[in-house]
Amino acid sequence: MSAKDVCAVASDSQEPVMNMGDNIKLYNKANVITRNDTQLCLQEYSPRFNWYKKNARILDVGSGDGSVTTILSTFLPSDYEVLIGADINPKSVKFANDNYGNKRIKFVQLDIAGTLPDDMKESFDHVFSFYVFHWIDDHHKAFTNIYNALQKDGEFFATFLLFSDIYLGMEMLAKTKKWATWMPNFDKFPSQYYDFHDPDVHVANMLKNIGFNVLDVRCKQRIYHYESIDVYKDILTAINSFDIPKDIWSEFLEESVQIKKDMHLVDEKGVKTRYNLMVIHCTK
Amino acid sequence: MSAKDVCAVASDSQEPVMNMGDNIKLYNKANVITRNDTQLCLQEYSPRFNWYKKNARILDVGSGDGSVTTILSTFLPSDYEVLIGADINPKSVKFANDNYGNKRIKFVQLDIAGTLPDDMKESFDHVFSFYVFHWIDDHHKAFTNIYNALQKDGEFFATFLLFSDIYLGMEMLAKTKKWATWMPNFDKFPSQYYDFHDPDVHVANMLKNIGFNVLDVRCKQRIYHYESIDVYKDILTAINSFDIPKDIWSEFLEESVQIKKDMHLVDEKGVKTRYNLMVIHCTK
Repeated sequence: MSAKDVCAVASDSQEPVMNMGDNIKLYNKANVITRNDTQLCLQEYSPRFNWYKKNARILDVGSGDGSVTTILSTFLPSDYEVLIGADINPKSVKFANDNYGNKRIKFVQLDIAGTLPDDMKESFDHVFSFYVFHWIDDHHKAFTNIYNALQKDGEFFATFLLFSDIYLGMEMLAKTKKWATWMPNFDKFPSQYYDFHDPDVHVANMLKNIGFNVLDVRCKQRIYHYESIDVYKDILTAINSFDIPKDIWSEFLEESVQIKKDMHLVDEKGVKTRYNLMVIHCTK
Repeated sequence: MSAKDVCAVASDSQEPVMNMGDNIKLYNKANVITRNDTQLCLQEYSPRFNWYKKNARILDVGSGDGSVTTILSTFLPSDYEVLIGADINPKSVKFANDNYGNKRIKFVQLDIAGTLPDDMKESFDHVFSFYVFHWIDDHHKAFTNIYNALQKDGEFFATFLLFSDIYLGMEMLAKTKKWATWMPNFDKFPSQYYDFHDPDVHVANMLKNIGFNVLDVRCKQRIYHYESIDVYKDILTAINSFDIPKDIWSEFLEESVQIKKDMHLVDEKGVKTRYNLMVIHCTK
């Protein structure tokens, strides 16, 4: 959840930024879909993972608040040596260490689309990444860094968003006269595969060209119910990347919910979201 | 395109029906997306097909107007014995024979979710089906018939719709007070996987249980541009399954286009549609 936001925070540009301060707590409270999808994907895919070495060293790219890294830890063989959660945002890293760190689970700062530190090269047996790559612009660089971080025969597993009706709702607002002023950078917000034909073919080719042995790259059609309108508003607030004034933020949320209602996606089960999730599984 | 419509036509129920008469011509004119997707999927997948026998016998399930069957014929080895296009709708079969039939390409009537005729059992080396299964309710029966129609080692390849924003637009209208009267059977209209979590897992399990060796079942995220608003209206008219009075049909079309405009899917390239396509590839 963090790459683009913090890129914006770190730069001195005039682009709207996201205040990651309190939002890490809110994200931690509200990112149930991320935890749910990670659990489901690991249940489906972990029987296929190849724990070819004992005392494995594992990297979780884009560990955010740390809660998903902790879910990942429950799927690891008990003898793993270390699980490093890495995130571009130092505030996320601190929150994760404070709340989820322990003897074997540690969180560090890393920009996966930047320069890979020498001590991370060929250092890991497994790299994971959940719900992160839709925040990253330079996939080729990030995938190459992951390839270089893996030891020979190492394994990479990732999930990230493609189409999502949350992006669609945001786009519908971003292109209105009322909200366009506050969302000039909308195009940078959604997954680069939000509006993309056959992303599986494109991503598989990129991974092959980098040198990966591609086992599976696929689009999963998924449904999720946010349990209530309030929870849905919380997640929109936690991932907000737009510089919308605080005094009209609740209006923005109301209009976002109205779009869901117009699509008949709000009912007694909560707020439904339809989205496509990319799943990547490959080896070095 | 035909199964559900003709089921409705053939029954004496009060459910809205679709007039297939002139619409076969209109469908033939307007179903460019079906032809385009078939071409693209065959380009991607045909290198993986196993033409294990010379003089192959091929079945195309749900051949509709016959135009897609003709595209399929260009991907077959030159020595194929016969290509049978089968459709539930006798009017489609006549249209297809009149316009696309020849010495080796023949069209016959068949309800793939009904009883498989004895002379079709273990009769084909390859079965194909393009853009048909989103019209079929009983997938288990239809897949079982296809399994039984194949010879040992025979191969099955199919595509059909999952989510589509055309279904979404229809749903948005069907649930308004104004249009609900004319669309009481909306729930039977979309693909049964329109609103479905992980359809790839579900369908792969069904195929395995029937006895297929599953090579690939996946969801493809796709984009298509209908070249103009008029072409988009034509396809909506050709696939219309609702008993909407003729004098308000143009109003229905206008409101359908307005929904696309609200989603920013109408631009100089035409009318964009986002959808997910299921691709099935397996052997007996």
